[in-house]
Amino acid sequence: MAYRAPVEDILFALKHAAGFAKARVDGLYGDLTDDDLAAVLGEAGRFASEVLAPLNAPGDRSGTLFRDGEVTMPPGWKDAYRAWAAAGWNGVAAPVEWGGQGLPHAVNAACIEMWNSAAMAFGLGPVLTMAGANVLASFGAEDLKRTYLPKLVSGEWMGTMELTEPQAGSDVGALRTRAERAGDGSYRITGGKIFITYGEHDLTDNIIHFVLARIAGAPDGIKGLSLFLIPKFLAGPGGGLGARNDLRANRIEHKLGLHASPTCHMVYGDRGGCVGYLIGEENRGMAAMFTMMNEARLAVGLQGVAIAERATQQAAAYARERRQGRPDPAGPPGARASRPSSPAGETPALQQVPIITHVDVRRMLLTMRALTRAARAICFATAVALDRSRLAPDAAGRKAAQERAALLTPVAKAFSTDIGTEVASLGIQVHGGAGYIEETGAAQHYRDARIAQIYEGTNGIQAIDLVTRKVPLNGGATVRGYIAELRRTVDAVKAANDPAFGATAERLGAATEALAEATEWVLAALAARPDAALAGATAYLRLFASAAGGSMLADEALAAARQGSAAGDGADAPGRIAVARFFAENLAVQAKALARIVTEGADAVLLAEAGLGAP
Amino acid sequence: MAYRAPVEDILFALKHAAGFAKARVDGLYGDLTDDDLAAVLGEAGRFASEVLAPLNAPGDRSGTLFRDGEVTMPPGWKDAYRAWAAAGWNGVAAPVEWGGQGLPHAVNAACIEMWNSAAMAFGLGPVLTMAGANVLASFGAEDLKRTYLPKLVSGEWMGTMELTEPQAGSDVGALRTRAERAGDGSYRITGGKIFITYGEHDLTDNIIHFVLARIAGAPDGIKGLSLFLIPKFLAGPGGGLGARNDLRANRIEHKLGLHASPTCHMVYGDRGGCVGYLIGEENRGMAAMFTMMNEARLAVGLQGVAIAERATQQAAAYARERRQGRPDPAGPPGARASRPSSPAGETPALQQVPIITHVDVRRMLLTMRALTRAARAICFATAVALDRSRLAPDAAGRKAAQERAALLTPVAKAFSTDIGTEVASLGIQVHGGAGYIEETGAAQHYRDARIAQIYEGTNGIQAIDLVTRKVPLNGGATVRGYIAELRRTVDAVKAANDPAFGATAERLGAATEALAEATEWVLAALAARPDAALAGATAYLRLFASAAGGSMLADEALAAARQGSAAGDGADAPGRIAVARFFAENLAVQAKALARIVTEGADAVLLAEAGLGAP
Repeated sequence: MAYRAPVEDILFALKHAAGFAKARVDGLYGDLTDDDLAAVLGEAGRFASEVLAPLNAPGDRSGTLFRDGEVTMPPGWKDAYRAWAAAGWNGVAAPVEWGGQGLPHAVNAACIEMWNSAAMAFGLGPVLTMAGANVLASFGAEDLKRTYLPKLVSGEWMGTMELTEPQAGSDVGALRTRAERAGDGSYRITGGKIFITYGEHDLTDNIIHFVLARIAGAPDGIKGLSLFLIPKFLAGPGGGLGARNDLRANRIEHKLGLHASPTCHMVYGDRGGCVGYLIGEENRGMAAMFTMMNEARLAVGLQGVAIAERATQQAAAYARERRQGRPDPAGPPGARASRPSSPAGETPALQQVPIITHVDVRRMLLTMRALTRAARAICFATAVALDRSRLAPDAAGRKAAQERAALLTPVAKAFSTDIGTEVASLGIQVHGGAGYIEETGAAQHYRDARIAQIYEGTNGIQAIDLVTRKVPLNGGATVRGYIAELRRTVDAVKAANDPAFGATAERLGAATEALAEATEWVLAALAARPDAALAGATAYLRLFASAAGGSMLADEALAAARQGSAAGDGADAPGRIAVARFFAENLAVQAKALARIVTEGADAVLLAEAGLGAP
Repeated sequence: MAYRAPVEDILFALKHAAGFAKARVDGLYGDLTDDDLAAVLGEAGRFASEVLAPLNAPGDRSGTLFRDGEVTMPPGWKDAYRAWAAAGWNGVAAPVEWGGQGLPHAVNAACIEMWNSAAMAFGLGPVLTMAGANVLASFGAEDLKRTYLPKLVSGEWMGTMELTEPQAGSDVGALRTRAERAGDGSYRITGGKIFITYGEHDLTDNIIHFVLARIAGAPDGIKGLSLFLIPKFLAGPGGGLGARNDLRANRIEHKLGLHASPTCHMVYGDRGGCVGYLIGEENRGMAAMFTMMNEARLAVGLQGVAIAERATQQAAAYARERRQGRPDPAGPPGARASRPSSPAGETPALQQVPIITHVDVRRMLLTMRALTRAARAICFATAVALDRSRLAPDAAGRKAAQERAALLTPVAKAFSTDIGTEVASLGIQVHGGAGYIEETGAAQHYRDARIAQIYEGTNGIQAIDLVTRKVPLNGGATVRGYIAELRRTVDAVKAANDPAFGATAERLGAATEALAEATEWVLAALAARPDAALAGATAYLRLFASAAGGSMLADEALAAARQGSAAGDGADAPGRIAVARFFAENLAVQAKALARIVTEGADAVLLAEAGLGAP
């Protein structure tokens, strides 16, 4: 099934839900015009739709081949990658001085969504390269940057991000990979890493590994971790490839999905000569790695959006085409003898209607569309906050934006990937029996989407991060300030006084107050009963996203209504109001219950040890 | 990962949540003793755990092989099936006069759960054989029964159930397979069927197809459908195999899961000689097929329970074994420097704790356990109602039970299979990255579970069936009577006055009143605005299951508390109270919001056509 990059929708979300328009007014984005923006995203959309999307299903079917430490990517992937890198897409947001285009992170976020909609297994690799380039630019020594950064920015060489070891998954502090000072400023690395995305492949001639390891004599735990750059091939004279380094992949994993993304078990230095270069200071590796992780977390959130968008497109197209049953009853019963899609009526095939006309199918498609757009808005808003944290003219503005980005990042990651799976599952359901057949393609989205809830910090850990680190920022002032903004949207919906919004203002108002109440409870609980705060963390994150996502959809709807339908720009005021209303009345309506789980549900978790007694 | 049949838990749910104990007191089950029951289920559990469960992962990996119209099952499956049938398991609930054991349907339901936990792809086939035997026993002519029923009851021959054609999925009335009278009382069948489970295989020497087709000259739609028995091999003299009938599988599907269950595309009569025998009257095929479908729907619900149980066992075992991070903070912060599973603390591997001790993991496991038990109780209660509908001494009792079973069947099917997928997904999440690796096995449950939301009537159709046919039974008296029973459980929890129940009574009371309110709204809407009733159907079904499931878990907890922990019998009062409380406070707490979606959410769906405008 074809993918059509939703460029207009993306532009609209960027500008009117995520704060891109305001950031431009505030001068953050220099002289970047609307036309520039549309041109970049239009071009990215074309590449994604025309070059990458056709690789997705074949890549899933053929997977990657592992033999003798080498990984062969699916047919066509190397050419596509090289064309993609040659067009400059790897360096969209990278510094101009290192060969990047220096565009806003928000623009890159929009591109990342499209690469991953087209082929998530493809989009995943560059996310790690970009994050590696970013950490190297921020923390690397000058000569290391000169040698490696231009090629990581251009994408000529790809990067990896390596924390996990068998005994150290979520528990990073437990890792054991060792580094010894070699005397020449470099280090000798020994150890192994598992679940390494794009750890080995043939897309590029060299692969640059960003690896956490413990220098001999360093403390236990995360305070003894340092970050190393470990190239597959050492840099040769003149910037070419030098000697093969002592590292290799010794297996790849057989996974539920993402079959075209090689997940490798890496071995370092078992022949005694793996050369690594320290990035930043000794024992300060986690600080540097967090830079990579935060960027990667947002990118993973965008993968959730991406897969949701593609699943929605596919389901909507199928629902317009597939004919089953007669029209649903619109008036009082009796006018028609039978129920839709039920075996009680008579339905000559000729009278069958497209299933998109059935109420329950429309409910599923609306759910898919509303969740996708809400997650997109949250991710883009996080990206704009990151831009503002670098580009705002005043230090206070940068600090506030940095805190806003910190607050939103776990929500962007966890909510978007949770709904990625939910939407992909609904996509199967819309297809009925055909959805369970692999050739249809809906099942691939469902398989691919599932990992995003796990990698770059499981969604449970995102929720714990939100509750225990982000909500307490500035004694709660950061989150309270955000909630105050949500209230302004509620007021604006009220003030619009447009009956098409239905109960949007009431439901969003209730959701926002539920979030406020749960937030105050969490702040108090963190001091008095931190375990109780942990018990409700996942519900709190969903509550946060319900209020924030609903509010952003309302922002979009209000902006579209202001512009009028004739304004173009993907405004579609009736459609945006309908989606905002659906989200408020059918999804955000859960907010009060979520708040109750946070504030009153903890004892049921904490006292329940006995309930786990059964096998 | 090993499966241990939860025989004690199943027995407890049967007796104390599903009404089996009361049915026995009422004399429905003759002289069936507790010991008989425990012996049968214990034996079934042993067979499931020891013989079938080890076939599950290898069967998924090897799948079924299709060549020249023949399907080869995975290694070991034929022997296992034959041993299973030889032990009499296919005929547990079949009539004694045809070679069955004549045990209650509820006992068979418990067995079906265990077969499907052990290997869902295995358990699926016999469900169709049993349903076919049942429809033949109920509607077939005497000579047809004599020829085919003993072998379908013993399982020597397996059966299929065939409705779907390419243009007729949910829309059964649109099917085109034709039957012509042959003049000798039999018919000649021509046409094709798709998505036919176990349509071809080598487990048995013969396969009996139960096929809906339209007799020449019959009306369009479902009122022109007749049910036919079409044997792969005609019966030969002396009950052996006669001539090969003109039917074949011409492909099998490549599916997301259930790889060891062959899903076939069947062709009938393309050489002009496919012999079929009418079951029941001409043009009354749907009535007979509904018998099969209702039985199969409950069995599919049990598959949801089954996969949820197995996923829960596997996740709990992993969570007890896998060590990551330090203990979660139980008191005020400061006592420990770091958060669980976070990269901020120091965690030498030796100090790592089993992840089951982390609050968020316990929340996931409790959710899995509570949803699984609630779904099991609903399915078993449906089975007991079916028994009562056949066995109650008075006609009024049989009619009331028949209506109760009709009311609960769509809930049992849809809720159990929805939570089957949800629980399997949580099972992956508990495993972290390992959950995404196929060898772990958690992913197989997730893939296998997904079909159950689709086949035997999609869950959307179950919800529409509940709202448009079952809620209106007896002008609403059936559902109101059921709600009155739920209220009695709420009162009993209140009366128990046990602080361990926490807010169980309040939450279940609120859920029950939300269900009552939504029910009255639905009854009114069906008359005035049936499309609005359809829009909320899925939320209504979940609301129904939340109130019913929560109530049944409370029934179990109350029964366990009455018995005391010393009573054995799987009572575990503290554990059962904890699970009931968790369900009420963390899951059923959504009831009010679900009711609101039903009663106030419809316009957002019905007016939203514009919202689907984007691609």
